[in-house]
Amino acid sequence: MSTTATPELMKSTLTEMGKKAKTASRALAVLPSDEKNRCLEMMARGVEQAAEAIKAANAEDLEKAKQAGLAPAMIDRLTLTDRRIQEMADGLRVVASQHDPVGRVLSTTVRPNGLEITKISVPLGVIGIIYESRPNVTVDAAGICLKAGNAVILRGGSEAFHSNLILAGIMNRAAIGCGLPDGTVQLVPWTDHAAVNLLLKMDQYLDLIIPRGGERLIRLVCAEATMPVLKHYKGVCHLYVDRECDVEKAVEIVVNAKVQRPSACNALETLLIDRKIAERFVPPFVAAMKENGVELRGDEEFRKLDPEAVPATEDDYYAEYLALVLTVKMVGSVEEAVEHINQYGSRHSDGILSDIPADIDYFFANVDSSTLYANASTRFTDGGEFGMGAEIGISTDKLHARGPMGADELTSYKYLVRGSGQIRP
Amino acid sequence: MSTTATPELMKSTLTEMGKKAKTASRALAVLPSDEKNRCLEMMARGVEQAAEAIKAANAEDLEKAKQAGLAPAMIDRLTLTDRRIQEMADGLRVVASQHDPVGRVLSTTVRPNGLEITKISVPLGVIGIIYESRPNVTVDAAGICLKAGNAVILRGGSEAFHSNLILAGIMNRAAIGCGLPDGTVQLVPWTDHAAVNLLLKMDQYLDLIIPRGGERLIRLVCAEATMPVLKHYKGVCHLYVDRECDVEKAVEIVVNAKVQRPSACNALETLLIDRKIAERFVPPFVAAMKENGVELRGDEEFRKLDPEAVPATEDDYYAEYLALVLTVKMVGSVEEAVEHINQYGSRHSDGILSDIPADIDYFFANVDSSTLYANASTRFTDGGEFGMGAEIGISTDKLHARGPMGADELTSYKYLVRGSGQIRP
Repeated sequence: MSTTATPELMKSTLTEMGKKAKTASRALAVLPSDEKNRCLEMMARGVEQAAEAIKAANAEDLEKAKQAGLAPAMIDRLTLTDRRIQEMADGLRVVASQHDPVGRVLSTTVRPNGLEITKISVPLGVIGIIYESRPNVTVDAAGICLKAGNAVILRGGSEAFHSNLILAGIMNRAAIGCGLPDGTVQLVPWTDHAAVNLLLKMDQYLDLIIPRGGERLIRLVCAEATMPVLKHYKGVCHLYVDRECDVEKAVEIVVNAKVQRPSACNALETLLIDRKIAERFVPPFVAAMKENGVELRGDEEFRKLDPEAVPATEDDYYAEYLALVLTVKMVGSVEEAVEHINQYGSRHSDGILSDIPADIDYFFANVDSSTLYANASTRFTDGGEFGMGAEIGISTDKLHARGPMGADELTSYKYLVRGSGQIRP
Repeated sequence: MSTTATPELMKSTLTEMGKKAKTASRALAVLPSDEKNRCLEMMARGVEQAAEAIKAANAEDLEKAKQAGLAPAMIDRLTLTDRRIQEMADGLRVVASQHDPVGRVLSTTVRPNGLEITKISVPLGVIGIIYESRPNVTVDAAGICLKAGNAVILRGGSEAFHSNLILAGIMNRAAIGCGLPDGTVQLVPWTDHAAVNLLLKMDQYLDLIIPRGGERLIRLVCAEATMPVLKHYKGVCHLYVDRECDVEKAVEIVVNAKVQRPSACNALETLLIDRKIAERFVPPFVAAMKENGVELRGDEEFRKLDPEAVPATEDDYYAEYLALVLTVKMVGSVEEAVEHINQYGSRHSDGILSDIPADIDYFFANVDSSTLYANASTRFTDGGEFGMGAEIGISTDKLHARGPMGADELTSYKYLVRGSGQIRP
C-alpha cells in the first residue's frame, strides 16, 4: 500500500480498521488463557519462520534511511538482525509464560441486602499505539496487548514502515490461524500525520491511545485525542545525597544511575548534594565522574569545589540529557531537595541516599513522582526489574497507571452483581 | 466579582488559582487522617453557621432563575432549604467517618536483589470539576476531594453562581482555619465558556477534570482538555428477561428499575424479552407498566402482544429517556440480547433476569459494561449502595475508574523502593 491516500480513502479505511478491531476485541475478551498463550506461541513461530522476509523488508527501510542520511544511532535502532528477530520471538514466549491479567478477582463484597458484588479485571478493548523508529515495538506491543485481551491498532514511524507492515501482518495472521477474527493486530498503512489526526478522533473504536516518542508527539496526541491517553513525557531523574550517608555506596549508585545507560529515561540527570556532606562526598564523586567521562554542570557553590564544572543554567535543571552530562546543585536540607525535585522534575524516578530514616520518610511522603528510591539506583524503574514481566512503557501520568506498566495495567474492571430479586427501596 | 472579565484578567486569575491549588495539594497530600477529618467537621460547622447567608445568596440565584423562566424542576434542584443545607453538612460528616483513601498499601514485593517495593495510594493532586445546576455539588465534591487529599477547582453553572460562591468560600476558609494554605477549595469566579476553555488547557496545574452535566458539555471537555478526563456520558441501561426466570420477581425488578426514580442514570431504558418466555411474562409486565403510567415503545413483534405500544424507532434503542418511557424488544437468545446491549448501550449498568446459570455467565463475560446484574435492579449502581460511602460520580470510562467512584477512585499510587546500595548490572 502507498504511504499517502485521499482523505476519504484514509477515513473509510481507518473506520473499517476500527470496526474490525472492536469485533476482534470482543472475541479476545473471552478467550481462555491457554488459547491466548497458544496464539502468542503461533506469533513467535510466525516471526521465526519469516526471518528472511522480515530482513528483506527491513533492508528496504534501511536503504531509504541511508539515502535520507539518518544518524548511525537511528539506523542501528532500525536494523533487524537474526538475533533481534529471535529476541522478538522469545519476548512473545516470555509474555505467554506470565499470569493472565484478565479475570483476576479484585474484590468481593456482600452487601447487607444480600447482593454479592465481585470486581474483576477485564481488557480495555482496543488500544492505539503511536510509536517511532524501533520495529520490535510492533511485536512487543502487540504481544502484551493480546495477553491482556486487547486488540491493537499500531501506527509506527515512516522509517520502519516496511518492517512494521510485515511484522504486524505475521502477528495478525497468527491470530486468525488461532480462530480469532481478522483485526487483532493492525498497522495503519500510512505514515502521514493526517492518519494520526483521524485516529485521535476515533474514540468510538479506541479505548486508549499510547504515544511513545518525543515530547512533541506526545503533546500533539494529548491536545488532539478525544480518547484517554497514557503517556511518558520524560525522565528528569534526581538523586539527593543527604547529610549523612555511606559515601562509597552513594558514589557507586550515582555512577550507576548516570553511566550504566545514559539514554534510558530512568537515568540520572540532576544530582543534589547536601552541603553538610560535600567535603566528604564531592572529591570521590568528581573523580568517579571524570573517570567515566561525565560532563558536570554545577551551580556556583558546587563550582567552588570543582572549578572544572561548567556553570549550570536554569535550563539545565529541566534538562533530560540522555547523555553523559550531569547537573549538580548544592542544597541545605532534605526539604530544599524535595522542593527542587517537585519544581524541576518530571515525576518519574527520584531517590535519596541517606542513613537518616526520618529524611527518607520525608522524601518518600513529599516527592510527587511515580517511583522513589532510598539507597538504590534510579535505573530500576522498569517492568522487568519490578517483576511485571513485559513492559508496555513507563507512565508519568497519575490517572489509571503510574510508573512501569505491564499487562495488568492494560486492563480495566467491571462489577458483577448477583442478586435474588433485590429492588431498591 | 463580576461574571465576565477581560481575557488577560481571566487568564492571570486562573493561573494564580492553579498555583494556589498546587501549593495546597502538597500540604493536603501529607495531612494526617485525623486532621483531614477535623477539617471536614469545620467545613460542616461552617455550612451550618452560615445557613442564613447561604439562603440569602441562593435567593439571588432563584430570583434570576425565575426571571429567566427556568423550568420548575430546575428551580427545585437549585433551591437550598434549611433541610438541604443540613444535609450538605451531614454529608461532610459522613465523608469524615469513612476510611482514609490515602496511604493504603496496595502491594509489597521483595525482589531477588533485595529491593523492597511498596505500592501505596497517594492523592491525584488538583482536580477540576465542571458541573451544572445543583449547588450541593460544591460541598459534596469539595468534601470528597479533600478526603482523598486533593485540592479542587470548581466551575459551577451560572444559575447557581451566588450559592456556589458562598459555599466554596466557606469550605476554603474552614481549610485555612485548619492550617491549610489558601487554595484547598476554589471556585472559578466566571461562568462564561471562555473560563472553561482556559481551564481545560491548564494541565500544568490540574491532574484531572471531571465534567458533570449533559453530553454536549462532556464532549466539549473531552475534545478540548489536555489533562485526563473522567466522565459519565449517559446510562442507557438494559434488562434481559431470559427464557427461564421467576416471572413475578422479574416484573418487580423491571418496575423498580424503570419507575423508582426514572431520572437516575441507572434507571432502565430498554427491556429485552426472550420470546420463549413472552407468553408468561408479557401480560403481567404490560399490566404493571400500565399501572405505573409507563409509556411502552415496542418492536413489531412486541406490538403484536401489546397493540397499545408505540412503534419503536432506531433512535429509541439509543435513548436515555430519564422519564416514564420504556423501549421493548423481543430477542431469541442471550447471545442476541448481549449483541443488542453492546451495540446500543452506554456501558453503564445492564442486567439479566434468569434461572439459567450458563446464561448468567455468558451475559457477565460478554456484556461490556461497568456493572452487570443477575436478578437484581440496575438501580443499585451507586457509590452508597456499593458501600463506598460518598460518591463523586459514575464513570462510563474504562481507564482509571469504572462504575461508581468514591474517594478511593480519586487517588493514584506511587512506588517506594528501599535498597541497601543496589545498582543495576
